[in-house]
Amino acid sequence: MYIPTYDDMLAAHERVKPHIRCTPVRTSHYLNELAGCELFFKCENFHEPGAFKVRGASNAVFGLDDEQAKKGVATHSSGNHASCLSYAAMLRGIPCNVVMPHTAPQAKKDTVRRYGGKITECEPSTTSREETFAKVQAETGGDFVHPYNDPRVIAGQGTCSKELIEQTDGLDFVVAPIGGGGMISGTCLTLSMLAPETKVIAAEPEQADDAYRSFKAGHIIADDAPKTIADGLLVPLKDLTWHFVSNQVHEMYTASEAEIVDAMKIIWKHLRVVMEPSSAVPLATILNNRDAFAGKRVGVIVTGGNVDLDKLPWMNS
Amino acid sequence: MYIPTYDDMLAAHERVKPHIRCTPVRTSHYLNELAGCELFFKCENFHEPGAFKVRGASNAVFGLDDEQAKKGVATHSSGNHASCLSYAAMLRGIPCNVVMPHTAPQAKKDTVRRYGGKITECEPSTTSREETFAKVQAETGGDFVHPYNDPRVIAGQGTCSKELIEQTDGLDFVVAPIGGGGMISGTCLTLSMLAPETKVIAAEPEQADDAYRSFKAGHIIADDAPKTIADGLLVPLKDLTWHFVSNQVHEMYTASEAEIVDAMKIIWKHLRVVMEPSSAVPLATILNNRDAFAGKRVGVIVTGGNVDLDKLPWMNS
Repeated sequence: MYIPTYDDMLAAHERVKPHIRCTPVRTSHYLNELAGCELFFKCENFHEPGAFKVRGASNAVFGLDDEQAKKGVATHSSGNHASCLSYAAMLRGIPCNVVMPHTAPQAKKDTVRRYGGKITECEPSTTSREETFAKVQAETGGDFVHPYNDPRVIAGQGTCSKELIEQTDGLDFVVAPIGGGGMISGTCLTLSMLAPETKVIAAEPEQADDAYRSFKAGHIIADDAPKTIADGLLVPLKDLTWHFVSNQVHEMYTASEAEIVDAMKIIWKHLRVVMEPSSAVPLATILNNRDAFAGKRVGVIVTGGNVDLDKLPWMNS
Repeated sequence: MYIPTYDDMLAAHERVKPHIRCTPVRTSHYLNELAGCELFFKCENFHEPGAFKVRGASNAVFGLDDEQAKKGVATHSSGNHASCLSYAAMLRGIPCNVVMPHTAPQAKKDTVRRYGGKITECEPSTTSREETFAKVQAETGGDFVHPYNDPRVIAGQGTCSKELIEQTDGLDFVVAPIGGGGMISGTCLTLSMLAPETKVIAAEPEQADDAYRSFKAGHIIADDAPKTIADGLLVPLKDLTWHFVSNQVHEMYTASEAEIVDAMKIIWKHLRVVMEPSSAVPLATILNNRDAFAGKRVGVIVTGGNVDLDKLPWMNS
């Protein structure tokens, strides 16, 4: 297991800079008053494909040597990693193969195809996904870029908090959502060197709290069929992300589904940015744990902004 | 009638700079492809009170001498001007009186009160509003800041396109929505001096097209009970804004209600910013008039972001 270093992150930033946006940081006096601390929202939803995952994906794609690049990249994902990897591959002009369950939302498939990604559908089971992916990879020779358990991906995600620290002049905390742990790992990687006084907090839905339970238990605990509207956070930790989570995360907090939806509405209304339920989990946990953040300078990673506007979570309530 | 000058706008910018944000410009490769031109969205919805009107309001409020400031400001509005004037008055620590029909949405009243504005309710008629306002002004001595037909307000709104030109390195067009004409007038005021080659386009809902018909007829035509989801654009032109509209607007385009809702969803989805129906009118008209903008650099003023998330226009469809 190769653990990415701070220099890997710096190299990643040089590599991806020409291809991604330096996303803006948004603030709101109203939200500061509401939360009792000073909030700095890093708007990763403002990347062209709408998610921070374009950082890690671009680092992997633009780091390939020419020979491998001809064969392209491959992954399995039905989320933002699939579209961001397709987007990065499109920028470099190389093939991207994506294995996705046939049950994935049409909008996700459309986005991958808009960026030139080629989808091979599988059954919605781990066995079918692994078999199908092995076949696709054998046929295409595409380089496997895992959604998060890949040193290139983690180094790429780490470029986000490098920008955030440069944009804010120092923070007491950075809070990011945790699913597989790619963003949190990149955040730990960067801040442990660049701003060791800044504490990394992971925020997780109560209904998919495998990372929280793992963190408290001291070993990876897999979740049994997690179910949350924060659909970017369903996947489990892996060895590489567990390394960062277990060693460098300062604390982990959870929030209920109702709290996540409330936080999402608050951000849409007062920050006026469109972000996914997953991206609302940090604010939900901050509002749940005001004492821990009182009066502090708190960075919040707004991880993505890809939502179905016709199925907003408060439309049913 | 005093017509504000370019120097008034420059003075306004110096005056309001410490109190407002220099709002960011957002771009999207996807939207550029869709529209066939290069779009630069000036995100005025990212001001603390969520609308460009904080520029003109702040210019009026911070331009008062100390004696007048003690008596504060007063206006009649049930929209963004009311909350932005209250916000600016709160920043200076002076009174703000707002006359508003009792039928105005509770959310609008709440926002004005959150910023310390004092609301006096009237009946939803012009007569009642004027009578009530005269009474409030006589009692308080508050300086009347009209929502748009005021040289201080127009000079303040003009600071938006000054920033936009500085942020974009030149544009062929700037498209802004038109209601009473405050933003359009400020845009004309600034661009006619700073970037005379940049053409100003006004965008209006078909169902509230009094400015369009006035522009074509060569004199102000008042609308008879306009009805559109772009509720920021219901008010008529006045003498001062007509001066700019009739002399300096290059062209005016309209869009249907369905086109406005479509454009709003496109911006929410692909630009990932929360903006009002009124702010979607420019993109709707650009998509309606592709030939006019083909291959050009086009600035778009995203005027505001105050919406009721529980009553989005596509929720009923």
